[in-house]
Amino acid sequence: MASTFQPLQNDLLLKALKGETVERPPVWMMRQAGRYLPEYRKLQEKYSFFERCETPELAAEITLQPIDRLGVDAAILFSDILVVAQALGFEVTIEKGEGPVIHNPVKSSVDVDRLVVPDVSDRLHYVMDAITLTRNELKGRVPLIGFAGAPWTIYCYLVEGHCSRNFSKAKQFYYQNREAAEGLLSIIADTTADYLNAQIKSGVQALQLFDSWAGLLSPEDFGRIAWPFIQQILDRVYDVPVIVFAKGSWYALESMAKSGVALGLDWTVSPEFARKATNGKVTLQGNFDPSHLLLSVAEIKDEVRKMIGRFGSQRYIVNLGHGILPEIPIDHAKAFVDAVKEYQES
Amino acid sequence: MASTFQPLQNDLLLKALKGETVERPPVWMMRQAGRYLPEYRKLQEKYSFFERCETPELAAEITLQPIDRLGVDAAILFSDILVVAQALGFEVTIEKGEGPVIHNPVKSSVDVDRLVVPDVSDRLHYVMDAITLTRNELKGRVPLIGFAGAPWTIYCYLVEGHCSRNFSKAKQFYYQNREAAEGLLSIIADTTADYLNAQIKSGVQALQLFDSWAGLLSPEDFGRIAWPFIQQILDRVYDVPVIVFAKGSWYALESMAKSGVALGLDWTVSPEFARKATNGKVTLQGNFDPSHLLLSVAEIKDEVRKMIGRFGSQRYIVNLGHGILPEIPIDHAKAFVDAVKEYQES
Repeated sequence: MASTFQPLQNDLLLKALKGETVERPPVWMMRQAGRYLPEYRKLQEKYSFFERCETPELAAEITLQPIDRLGVDAAILFSDILVVAQALGFEVTIEKGEGPVIHNPVKSSVDVDRLVVPDVSDRLHYVMDAITLTRNELKGRVPLIGFAGAPWTIYCYLVEGHCSRNFSKAKQFYYQNREAAEGLLSIIADTTADYLNAQIKSGVQALQLFDSWAGLLSPEDFGRIAWPFIQQILDRVYDVPVIVFAKGSWYALESMAKSGVALGLDWTVSPEFARKATNGKVTLQGNFDPSHLLLSVAEIKDEVRKMIGRFGSQRYIVNLGHGILPEIPIDHAKAFVDAVKEYQES
Repeated sequence: MASTFQPLQNDLLLKALKGETVERPPVWMMRQAGRYLPEYRKLQEKYSFFERCETPELAAEITLQPIDRLGVDAAILFSDILVVAQALGFEVTIEKGEGPVIHNPVKSSVDVDRLVVPDVSDRLHYVMDAITLTRNELKGRVPLIGFAGAPWTIYCYLVEGHCSRNFSKAKQFYYQNREAAEGLLSIIADTTADYLNAQIKSGVQALQLFDSWAGLLSPEDFGRIAWPFIQQILDRVYDVPVIVFAKGSWYALESMAKSGVALGLDWTVSPEFARKATNGKVTLQGNFDPSHLLLSVAEIKDEVRKMIGRFGSQRYIVNLGHGILPEIPIDHAKAFVDAVKEYQES
């Protein structure tokens, strides 16, 4: 399938991920396909969130919107990390003002026992169709990134049932049912590995794992509960480069870097700290404070230049430190991208 | 006034804060007066949140509950960081499931211009009364800690108007109205300094500043927006030791330690990182993951022992890394305290 796609014209992202020399760092933005774009909001009015995810034509259209509008160096598939929860048989809805809700959360080890790794290519075939359609429509302009949630983050939703400041129910379940919790994490990891390999087969050229709730864990717990199940995925997914974005887990950068995987950073981590902790060994991605896109265009450009200067232009992917905020003006998002394209080593 | 109180019998906390040698580290718990205690929940049924804060007899009773029940080495006044917002003329209510809401938030520089530093001893006289009453009822058993929110955290509520995952409105106001925002932060700092000095006069023997939303800032923004206004308070409050708990600001430990103030830590910071970053110069407090109180009593005791071993028993105050969760069984909270009291240097 992949061989029928048009050849890639902009390989900055893939080169940066492989550690090859680039003339300037690539740039994309987490949640670049989304609510700050008026063309997205139009689709939002007409279709529900999961309609947008499950209709390949819509998902592809949304994925392409920021490519046309901002000229970023990568597309990232429009989808949601919780489609994996759906594939596992959980009923997920998005509630206004509350975010995702799991209507049949895991309450006991019995709920874990009845779970099996599903055939994700079948259950999530619409994602695979969206990927292939997007690759065809991209016509090789930029690479397509696929993604999934990391097991700890998916586990948090499956057990807690909804968003939470501290996911204490999810943590409680782990501490009081360790075997069942690890069984659940392992099933999520295996499902995710299958899912990502299916994405690769359908055409994604790089992958990102989002561990959004990593920062709720102590360093020891991250090493126990989060990382081993990310590693379980990495051991099975190797045909394209992978970026792990474990938000808030600055303390684990050193140990994560040993895996050789590219690492996403949130904006609390200084470039100097990140480079030192990872010993210059891996590609880093990040980490502009998304709220700084509320500064003036001139200030944004200045900050982006400084950020690249501090990270260095090699083994580096310019991005935000979290998803773009809905209230960001488009010309500010554009200034972010433009600043990278205009970047000159001084 | 303070001279009429009974002499202090347990000075572990004050000695640890001064860097004096102690036979074992002191222990208390953030939010130790609160929802995990059935005697608190009884008062909760009868009185609204602000009734409990504003009635000195109730505030004193609640403050004392964990002393009797758990035998902690310090009392911390039952109150709320947003009483300072009320003193500044903001209407604050606590809404179920949503937390604090400010009904007249700051929307423009005009809203800042009309603010003046209030006479806090008058406006918050009920806090002062509660402090004196608590001191009298404590009869010198343990010291009483007073507290306030740090300016950045109070600012977040005043501008955003309610709790938020990223306080983007509060950040936006800073980036787009820097002078007004800094004016607001400065007024909060001056009010807070007056407030803390009034607390000292009424009888508190140590203070804690809570910067709950520090972790939303990049290292540069913390140095620009948060720390200078904490320093503005510290410059005026020096009669009792102060603990600064800037949650999520691991990156600023090194610079904060230069002020000589004691530092609170959340559980993402390892003892080794914290001691190294602060160069052994300051007293550290923390940082047990509150959700680990859901482990078994034996596991809790084991983890507490290990934690003390890693921090060292001197210049150290045992605490949680954030407030105790409402669902913690009392005997688990008690095990946390007991483990410290049973601690033997190996």
